[in-house]
Amino acid sequence: MLISLDRTSAQSLQEQLFHQIRQQILDGRLKPDAAVPSSRHLAQQLKISRNSVTFAYERLINEGYLITRPMVGTYVAAVLPEQAMSTGDAGAAGPARPRAPQKLAPAAFTGRQHAILNTGRIPIDFWPQRTDPRAFPLKAWRRLILHALATAGHNLTEYGDPCGLMSLRAAIADHVSAMRDIHVRPEQVIVVAGAQLALNLAMRVLARESDGIVIENPCSQGAAYLFESLNLRLHPIDGDGHGLKTAELAGIDAQIAYVMPSHQYPMGGTLSLERRTELLRWAERTGAYIIEDDYDCEFHYGGMLLPALKASSPENVIYLGTFSKTLGAGLRTGYAIFPDHLAPAAAAAKALLDNGQVWLEQAALAEFLHTGGFVRHLRRVRLRYQQRRDALVSALRQAFGRVELRGAEGGTHVAWQIPPGLPKAHQLAGIARARNVGLYTVQAGGGHEYGGSTYDDGWLLMGYASLTEEQIEAGIARLRQAL
Amino acid sequence: MLISLDRTSAQSLQEQLFHQIRQQILDGRLKPDAAVPSSRHLAQQLKISRNSVTFAYERLINEGYLITRPMVGTYVAAVLPEQAMSTGDAGAAGPARPRAPQKLAPAAFTGRQHAILNTGRIPIDFWPQRTDPRAFPLKAWRRLILHALATAGHNLTEYGDPCGLMSLRAAIADHVSAMRDIHVRPEQVIVVAGAQLALNLAMRVLARESDGIVIENPCSQGAAYLFESLNLRLHPIDGDGHGLKTAELAGIDAQIAYVMPSHQYPMGGTLSLERRTELLRWAERTGAYIIEDDYDCEFHYGGMLLPALKASSPENVIYLGTFSKTLGAGLRTGYAIFPDHLAPAAAAAKALLDNGQVWLEQAALAEFLHTGGFVRHLRRVRLRYQQRRDALVSALRQAFGRVELRGAEGGTHVAWQIPPGLPKAHQLAGIARARNVGLYTVQAGGGHEYGGSTYDDGWLLMGYASLTEEQIEAGIARLRQAL
Repeated sequence: MLISLDRTSAQSLQEQLFHQIRQQILDGRLKPDAAVPSSRHLAQQLKISRNSVTFAYERLINEGYLITRPMVGTYVAAVLPEQAMSTGDAGAAGPARPRAPQKLAPAAFTGRQHAILNTGRIPIDFWPQRTDPRAFPLKAWRRLILHALATAGHNLTEYGDPCGLMSLRAAIADHVSAMRDIHVRPEQVIVVAGAQLALNLAMRVLARESDGIVIENPCSQGAAYLFESLNLRLHPIDGDGHGLKTAELAGIDAQIAYVMPSHQYPMGGTLSLERRTELLRWAERTGAYIIEDDYDCEFHYGGMLLPALKASSPENVIYLGTFSKTLGAGLRTGYAIFPDHLAPAAAAAKALLDNGQVWLEQAALAEFLHTGGFVRHLRRVRLRYQQRRDALVSALRQAFGRVELRGAEGGTHVAWQIPPGLPKAHQLAGIARARNVGLYTVQAGGGHEYGGSTYDDGWLLMGYASLTEEQIEAGIARLRQAL
Repeated sequence: MLISLDRTSAQSLQEQLFHQIRQQILDGRLKPDAAVPSSRHLAQQLKISRNSVTFAYERLINEGYLITRPMVGTYVAAVLPEQAMSTGDAGAAGPARPRAPQKLAPAAFTGRQHAILNTGRIPIDFWPQRTDPRAFPLKAWRRLILHALATAGHNLTEYGDPCGLMSLRAAIADHVSAMRDIHVRPEQVIVVAGAQLALNLAMRVLARESDGIVIENPCSQGAAYLFESLNLRLHPIDGDGHGLKTAELAGIDAQIAYVMPSHQYPMGGTLSLERRTELLRWAERTGAYIIEDDYDCEFHYGGMLLPALKASSPENVIYLGTFSKTLGAGLRTGYAIFPDHLAPAAAAAKALLDNGQVWLEQAALAEFLHTGGFVRHLRRVRLRYQQRRDALVSALRQAFGRVELRGAEGGTHVAWQIPPGLPKAHQLAGIARARNVGLYTVQAGGGHEYGGSTYDDGWLLMGYASLTEEQIEAGIARLRQAL
């Protein structure tokens, strides 16, 4: 077995092992009934713990790719789950084989797992999906939570509106009006458990079977893998420093486009004003809907924040926002804003998806927004993150001279194009990791590139929001020394 | 227009109006281009507020069923959204008509809205989905929340495992082991925002296009309308005092069965031991999966709580539980327990559905379970609800003599078969409502009956958990007097 493990990946070793062995089985490189090495043997060969191998094997067994013969060994299954699914009867595909005692179908779900969780604690970690825990307004939040609990009444025990607490929806409508010039009724705002659920909701409202969807390439894994798992036809379009190359939209048969115009994840690009207009024209011409994910627009450090697509085109844009970056991902609170004519369908779809968000956090957040505490908090945090961005940019310049960065105008991470002559992204991440510095490739950082590895080889993602200026400088200095 | 409004329904008057007019348009009773009465006229005729009519009309206009011609009036649209959807080009279906300025498709989503929200405040309200706000352990919860906040560290700002906090998953595994003899690894437990999301997750893991699904008839609207909206083939099977009539399973082509064996919603039936065995045998024979929704099993008042299906058949049962009844629906916390072999697919599907639950409530709940506080709370609340159940049963007996009840052995509501000679359920609910007593038909209480109205006409749902014994007695006495 040819296995190549990436210790810098956000994916655990077990998971990498599982996926690579599974892939080799599906490719036919590992044949049906072939013996696989013992877990002890494979662990020694790969220099990893035996537990990691055992865990991966157990999952392969559970999912039907391997079978164990007690006292004999472990083998590739004669009938793979995929075959059992597609032929219905294994007999049709080959000689009769013993059946499993139960005729249970394997899972219908076939999506991939995306990288969102980072449990490793690297001393200087540029993990791009992390904000600063010390920036959380804990004192104010504690007060808001206690106030909400003291006045909870029946709210802790009663079902609420699946679309969210009306006071919070109104506060969000005010926020996007002031911040993004988006003017909507509170009824158009639906409170959700983060952008991932918002995308599920939007797909349930909009997507028909085998619809085409335009995405930016690379795209965030959470979005891309969801669209894959729903069997949509993906149309990845490359971006550059000015965002999605809208010229390539012509002739694409798509009913939906998913974009992050302010600060694209993972590559950090900002969609230019010209391309915004072209994208909107394309949508108008074809009748497509646009999902505008504005996940970190609250952090913009000078220059002009370009107008939201939703502000120009209220009828065919679904606008997504989140408090994960501004307050904390642990609050699991975001929102989706639907065009007026889709709001009733969105409300019904949301109710069938889930019966709403936890009341306590909604009440606290509504109060935080209404009383202006949120805006004051934002001002403080924005300044802090801007200083860290400055520190990162100048540390990189000092160490590497001219540096090519995307996304430095806003948000909490940048994408850095590796200068000529330096190793590829994976290797560079490995070198950094050995010096206790966490750097992330596009794939390891929760992005996914279709049709190549230009970005995955040539760029690194660097989040700076959770690191002090000293840590940032030390991290880059260590990297420079190691090269 | 023939409109019949039900003021006792959990559905608002606007919504009823919207649905009935929409139905008449779809049925062809209201023809394309026909004028509809002015909102003032219709409001007078129906004796409801003009706002209600305006709201319903606006929604019909927004969704494309009605069009307004300024200064002239409101008309049935020439091309209905359903036609625009199915033919692609309205021209094919009839003479050319003016197009909307944008070629936007109407929502793909076509599900119905279920009744879960009850914002009316009827003085004595037997709303079946309500528990007692005064039973919420507010002091203990406040302490747990403060403790969690004080020790939060990075948990407020970091993404957590989409499947839930491991300490909570372990605590839930312990709970179902002690309570229901279900023995699973914490990794099989997925924390979800209530049973509705759990059903979405289970469908994403299990359901293939046009799969058949067995449901109990009547069924909870949340489940039934979700399955409808996913285009599954529904097979509603009637129940009786012993639950789902399993004899009718023979010959049904279904890959999934959704059941509530302990205390069915809405009808309260308990699946007998014999029928449990038959259901499991059917599933084993056909390879079907069973979703066992055990939403209120923690409340059982004597007699034996029959073993969970999941305990007998760990491989093909997905088990759902919730803290909505035991603690509070405002916490939005439930769980789904998957068979070992489906756990990896469930974890990946959950991550693509949403990135997990709010951290604070998870941490507080894990602590509440681990320290035994939850079990002590349950003991207190169970006693209180049992006394209220006793009060309701004896008040009904005193007022009506022999009463036919289902579901009195457990949970927080019963179904009452209206004695011969009394009005139908809708009328009875109306009579009660005029005396400030809230009683609910199957449909108004969040259930849905397929293929008839035996239950909807002949039974009423009565929740007792949020009412004092005095309120219960007064409510039944008022009803008796009114008849």
